Amino acid sequence: MENCIFCKIAAGEIPSQKVYEDENMIAFKDINPQAKVHVLVVPKSHFATLADMNADQAELVKQCFVNIPHIAESLGLTNGYRLIVNQGQDAGQTVHHLHIHILGGQPMGEKML
Amino acid sequence: MENCIFCKIAAGEIPSQKVYEDENMIAFKDINPQAKVHVLVVPKSHFATLADMNADQAELVKQCFVNIPHIAESLGLTNGYRLIVNQGQDAGQTVHHLHIHILGGQPMGEKML
Repeated sequence: MENCIFCKIAAGEIPSQKVYEDENMIAFKDINPQAKVHVLVVPKSHFATLADMNADQAELVKQCFVNIPHIAESLGLTNGYRLIVNQGQDAGQTVHHLHIHILGGQPMGEKML
Repeated sequence: MENCIFCKIAAGEIPSQKVYEDENMIAFKDINPQAKVHVLVVPKSHFATLADMNADQAELVKQCFVNIPHIAESLGLTNGYRLIVNQGQDAGQTVHHLHIHILGGQPMGEKML
């Protein structure tokens, strides 16, 4: 997808602090971290939201969630982590390519907003 | 799973304000809402975290994410929503049965913690 920053990161056209990559997904450090550890897990296929995904892309989302515990372990998140997927304007979704935030490295409490 | 409150809700043994149900998952209003709209999406199969799930349960997680846009639409979340999955202690996971929070009905901004 032209002009999509995450597509460019996935293609290696924009540098990132990669923590995981396979043929279907890439995970890299958020450039504006909101927690001690803040990584984005991004399927390489471009789609903006869950409402836009096709069956193949749904399978990629599943693979992301299967891989996340391994990525979290590699990041040293042995005491847990929070996953966030922002969908649309109310959620403050800034990049319109589906991504899963991994936040951790600190206690976050039960309050979510 | 004995003594799991979400298993009891899924089995109909504890009442809930259901907003969606099929053979694999249930969605109901959080009893302590943190946003104007706060719904939990829960696979009926019991597993505590992504690290514990088997292949069938991973498929259920995928089905949850496929269904979430429809659930969100039925809740009137036309302007977006935030999904949160808390994993373990640092994230404040209180019920040890995997669940996806849908938060919406209000602008949440870009700040996530």
